Amino acid sequence: MNIAILGCGTVATGTIKLLQNNRQEIIKTLGEEITIRKVMDLYPDKVLSLGFPKEVYCSSLDEILADESISLIVELIGGTTAAYSFITRALKAGRHIVTANKDLIALYSKELDTLAGENNVFLMYEASVAGGIPLLGPLRRTLAANKIQSIYGILNGTTNYILSHMTKDGSDYLTVLKQAQELGFAEANPASDVGGADAARKVAILASLAFHTRVTYPQVHHEGITTITEADIRFARQEGYVPKLLGVTREINGSVVSYVRPALVPESHPLASVNEAYNAVYLVGDPVEKVMLYGKGAGAGPTASSVAGDIMEICRRLRREGTARDDLPFYEDKPLMDITETVNLYYVRILAADKPKVLAGIAGAFGDHDISIESLVQEPRKNGYAELMILTHAASEASLQATIYDLMQREYIKEVNTMIVLEEEE
Amino acid sequence: MNIAILGCGTVATGTIKLLQNNRQEIIKTLGEEITIRKVMDLYPDKVLSLGFPKEVYCSSLDEILADESISLIVELIGGTTAAYSFITRALKAGRHIVTANKDLIALYSKELDTLAGENNVFLMYEASVAGGIPLLGPLRRTLAANKIQSIYGILNGTTNYILSHMTKDGSDYLTVLKQAQELGFAEANPASDVGGADAARKVAILASLAFHTRVTYPQVHHEGITTITEADIRFARQEGYVPKLLGVTREINGSVVSYVRPALVPESHPLASVNEAYNAVYLVGDPVEKVMLYGKGAGAGPTASSVAGDIMEICRRLRREGTARDDLPFYEDKPLMDITETVNLYYVRILAADKPKVLAGIAGAFGDHDISIESLVQEPRKNGYAELMILTHAASEASLQATIYDLMQREYIKEVNTMIVLEEEE
Repeated sequence: MNIAILGCGTVATGTIKLLQNNRQEIIKTLGEEITIRKVMDLYPDKVLSLGFPKEVYCSSLDEILADESISLIVELIGGTTAAYSFITRALKAGRHIVTANKDLIALYSKELDTLAGENNVFLMYEASVAGGIPLLGPLRRTLAANKIQSIYGILNGTTNYILSHMTKDGSDYLTVLKQAQELGFAEANPASDVGGADAARKVAILASLAFHTRVTYPQVHHEGITTITEADIRFARQEGYVPKLLGVTREINGSVVSYVRPALVPESHPLASVNEAYNAVYLVGDPVEKVMLYGKGAGAGPTASSVAGDIMEICRRLRREGTARDDLPFYEDKPLMDITETVNLYYVRILAADKPKVLAGIAGAFGDHDISIESLVQEPRKNGYAELMILTHAASEASLQATIYDLMQREYIKEVNTMIVLEEEE
Repeated sequence: MNIAILGCGTVATGTIKLLQNNRQEIIKTLGEEITIRKVMDLYPDKVLSLGFPKEVYCSSLDEILADESISLIVELIGGTTAAYSFITRALKAGRHIVTANKDLIALYSKELDTLAGENNVFLMYEASVAGGIPLLGPLRRTLAANKIQSIYGILNGTTNYILSHMTKDGSDYLTVLKQAQELGFAEANPASDVGGADAARKVAILASLAFHTRVTYPQVHHEGITTITEADIRFARQEGYVPKLLGVTREINGSVVSYVRPALVPESHPLASVNEAYNAVYLVGDPVEKVMLYGKGAGAGPTASSVAGDIMEICRRLRREGTARDDLPFYEDKPLMDITETVNLYYVRILAADKPKVLAGIAGAFGDHDISIESLVQEPRKNGYAELMILTHAASEASLQATIYDLMQREYIKEVNTMIVLEEEE
């Protein structure tokens, strides 16, 4: 399949890199290659610096539409003026469209969906809401049999970063905003993020798909986080809540209501543990009950993941032509690794006789197998036994098993139990 | 599309009810109806008690295969003997298959996928892993462009319920197991859950699809939770960890390793907040980074959601025949409700002059608009102002706005800020 990409900014570059880096896997999955024939941008250097030959660069949509071999166009320009014109022209010219353009879809999803249908081409926009999180796909496919009742989303990474740090560090809004700007988590002009407009656009798109009715951005009431103070957060914590900016859309007695509001979320609610710049969408449907989808809501890589997923899905649909044969998972024969070859942190609990030199003996057994101990707690237990709780540094499962085998040979060891420790991630 | 259902137990009943209750939405989404022509079971009464006419009941697969109008068969018998034979016969007879059968798929996914391909029919099994959570669909569609690096899953509701309550209540394993059995969260014979075998089957299915290689249940090392003690949990909590039974599959230098092990998860990790009988799958891919999918891993409704999603997906693929026109989201014109008509709990912060009768006046304003106050904290602030933090009982946004308008007319009120409060769910 030949495609063209409109725009050569961050997301476009991420998408191009993904299609290059994961080329083999994509060919195996689809049974064909996705080839970038044209990249349109104002600046040729941006395109050429990615290693494309001169003829891939183009400066007008006409050049792309003139190439009959290009069946799918990826719109990554953003905005609602040029992008709207390009997409409508491309749809009318019978080209499938994949876009990450939240602003555009939040205003014109119904018109553009209808235009796509009239021209019998696909229009997909998974990346327009919550970046890399699989959201519109599951909503329209796996969850398609449900009546969706409500959606509560943390849909803006900047505001979630700010609220997380106000809560964690006890800092005030302006201090955290400044930090966020320095770290690149907030724009120099953060108005559309902190005021709730960005989240409102995503709510409009979600509401339209979940409730099968037209909801556009101006129809979503929105408020932001700029008035939240330390006093609010202190009070919320005392009462068992965490502050979040929630995008909400619900169907109530056949009517749909959509809004973005700062909200107090009970500490035990899954949304309460969505921190830093992460996004999450919590939905309630009948009969699936509660589902939460969590991940990175922005960034070149996560957004490119959704853009490429849409391209592949269209590719698959075009090739299928009513047959199932092409839709198989592909299987290769990869070697299976035994768990003994893995490297983990471990927790080890040992029940041992409470007498001299036992501790030294146990520590020695770990040392003999090159396992170093990060922390150790000894608790006395009844009947002359002591219980030792140990956290290790990284060690192979083989070393751990050898250590346990070694320990079990000793008459003063009664019992050894282990768990793996999941490493903390940034 | 005419379908048949094999088995008439809990999940089958849930699926039948879903197809009845959400019939209108399904027809609007697909443009056609899903009709249950046959239900096969040993006991006619089970089928007749669901309101089906006598001719829907059947007792053998032959009766179903003899009906050429039935193109899709839903296997909900479970087990690996009769189900294997029924599915292979049905695939060879050119029938599409949807199944929730984890035991079978964990052993034979590659054979059955291959057989489906040879016969040019679809085989789908979203419900075989983690019930209602959209998982295999997103993995094979939205996330298809990623190289999956690792998957960490809480894949068994029984063990997660037990570990959650051991952690929360400080009870020991056997006490919580007994409670779980009484409440229906654990089977009378819990061996396959608490020993890790159930989770291992799900890991085998996930590993096969994520890493495109054959991993079967016996190749997944598994351990359970029966040796976890209060001492383990106490130590874990002190060190900042939460105990979970994790199903893990990772690709390391081209090899795939898969195992189920009790694990300590850092408190700040998204998996740490997955409590009670909920399941979640956390995956790391390139370039999507981290994604978590969370929901009910079992139960008639959530499982039926995935079964019906698969049926609809096959229906859509068969009808598409290479055209996009049928794949549009459908749009109706639902009324939009204004946010003022919604009912919420509210948090209200008021900055007011710190003088007599102000508190009574504020409380009166809420009362005048029929808003009752659940809790109120007053804190003195500088410059003669006091700050009041209020949680309300349920009230309409219109009442809240009227209250705020009323308050703002008073000279002693300087500022009013509000948040909605997300209600705690069971």
